[in-house]
Amino acid sequence: MNDNTQFDVTAVGNAIVDVLAQADDRFLSDHELEKGVMSIIDGARAEKLYGLMGPGVEASGGSAANTVAGIAGLGGRAAFIGKVADDQLGQVFRHDIRAVGVAFDTPPLKGGISTARCLIFVTPDAQRTMQTFLGASSELGPEDVDEGRIAASKVVYLEGYLWDQPLAKEAMRKAAVAAGRAGRKVSFTLSDPFCVDRHREEFLDLVENHVDILFANESEIMSLYKVNEFEQAVDRVRGHCEVAALTRSELGSVIVSGREAEVIGAEAVPVVVDTTGAGDAYAAGFLHAYAQGRDLRACGRLGSLLAAEVISHYGARAETDLRALAAAV
Amino acid sequence: MNDNTQFDVTAVGNAIVDVLAQADDRFLSDHELEKGVMSIIDGARAEKLYGLMGPGVEASGGSAANTVAGIAGLGGRAAFIGKVADDQLGQVFRHDIRAVGVAFDTPPLKGGISTARCLIFVTPDAQRTMQTFLGASSELGPEDVDEGRIAASKVVYLEGYLWDQPLAKEAMRKAAVAAGRAGRKVSFTLSDPFCVDRHREEFLDLVENHVDILFANESEIMSLYKVNEFEQAVDRVRGHCEVAALTRSELGSVIVSGREAEVIGAEAVPVVVDTTGAGDAYAAGFLHAYAQGRDLRACGRLGSLLAAEVISHYGARAETDLRALAAAV
Repeated sequence: MNDNTQFDVTAVGNAIVDVLAQADDRFLSDHELEKGVMSIIDGARAEKLYGLMGPGVEASGGSAANTVAGIAGLGGRAAFIGKVADDQLGQVFRHDIRAVGVAFDTPPLKGGISTARCLIFVTPDAQRTMQTFLGASSELGPEDVDEGRIAASKVVYLEGYLWDQPLAKEAMRKAAVAAGRAGRKVSFTLSDPFCVDRHREEFLDLVENHVDILFANESEIMSLYKVNEFEQAVDRVRGHCEVAALTRSELGSVIVSGREAEVIGAEAVPVVVDTTGAGDAYAAGFLHAYAQGRDLRACGRLGSLLAAEVISHYGARAETDLRALAAAV
Repeated sequence: MNDNTQFDVTAVGNAIVDVLAQADDRFLSDHELEKGVMSIIDGARAEKLYGLMGPGVEASGGSAANTVAGIAGLGGRAAFIGKVADDQLGQVFRHDIRAVGVAFDTPPLKGGISTARCLIFVTPDAQRTMQTFLGASSELGPEDVDEGRIAASKVVYLEGYLWDQPLAKEAMRKAAVAAGRAGRKVSFTLSDPFCVDRHREEFLDLVENHVDILFANESEIMSLYKVNEFEQAVDRVRGHCEVAALTRSELGSVIVSGREAEVIGAEAVPVVVDTTGAGDAYAAGFLHAYAQGRDLRACGRLGSLLAAEVISHYGARAETDLRALAAAV
């Protein structure tokens, strides 16, 4: 893959600022928040929940955006396509992703709707429960996807969460088609078991006909194939994608490719503080190593190392210098 | 002090959102940032520095605001007076301080100027270098000080940093006079050695004639009296205030009261991550214990415990449940 590309990975995803606060299980049940999953909420509900939330910390987020931020931190060449508003949180998002070295120039949305916010309630067991107000992010459309940039990227990375938005879905389709036409790899994350549930037929079509590199966790891949055993899901995904990287929390990950399957152990973490962004970080490590032409074992190991960094502190993006991690595999 | 007050402590201070990012010493010298101190910058400089800054995390800050947030976290009754703009960062500030239980109802500034931001560069030695754009915060004026609320508070706490703003200075004077008239305690922090340098004569008058409880670190109190030895500063401050709580980083603190001086050891911290907010946290612990009628030794110990919590992680406000700390002294 030592071609004359401009980017290793260009991602298309939601452009979100996270608001992280601590909460207990009682709070989740009192306000009917489904633990561990991502729910889409409207502006009024976001306002209400924010009023009830404890003191917060703001940090740029968004699943695919976290992934390209990780790739850039590892020393990779990354770009991002996503929609913020022309407001203070939009400035925060743009600053943070550019500051880590990701190319980001999707024009901001002018007028009314504000930048997307994800209220993240972190419980003492380090689980995160996410309530997302999509705002300007849902206005991403095909006109924001530069086919030239996609063609100049080794991999295009698409976020399943975006499938909830009709316009954004068109943008992703356009990116996938442009990548296929240019002979680039299409990578996709299933994002969330409930997201899979909402779009199963379309996701199956995508996975079976367009995706080269699939990311999913255990419950997402089992939801996709409506099976009760992880092994059944592995059997089903085998052969559809060039690579399926399936994460299993503390059990590590299984990387399925043709008849092969690599089992990668999870990295030990002294104290798991906040699992927000674990899957995004795994995809970052994996795709960075992949774009460098490394074997699947190295891809999985770098994914595990980066995920371990991110879950050992509060917040979805890495806090330490990642180049040392990249050199370790 | 078991009177019929409504608040233990009402603070008057800057209403600021912090933007924290990591930086190295080379960055500080390249951009002529004076390490360890707080500098006031204008909007253009803030824009430029933010563009150069690494990826950040936003969290509510402001020195006196951090202190009352700490007091509320400890279970105390606290209020805050300070000015945000009617923008997203203003909403963040208001949410966070209210969410921790502090009464805050200063009306936001309408129009043009944005909420204050403090760009905080944290170096690997855990030192913080602060560049503050005051924005709406500098528009705080005497009309924002409710004398009834001051009279209903055991202690009014004033931030030296505010002295740079003529209108805010009037607001603080009004608060100090209202407290004195109602027989309440006036507490003041010198904030920063350079701030002391800019306002030495006025600060001396304040300390010698109006302040009951003074907070200062070693370099601030030495700057106030233009002396080269800490002990000389202790001799000078003795007798002017009812209490002077003088902090000395890893050497702990010295609490001077009349002919007495209590020496309090610093709390051990396994890894000092970020010293942002250490002094604010000390004042919070101290004032909370003071308002509960505890002796000066208990006040200093709770100050040290809270400061230790805050410097053991990134950001100026506590992350753990402080009520356990309050119960420990």
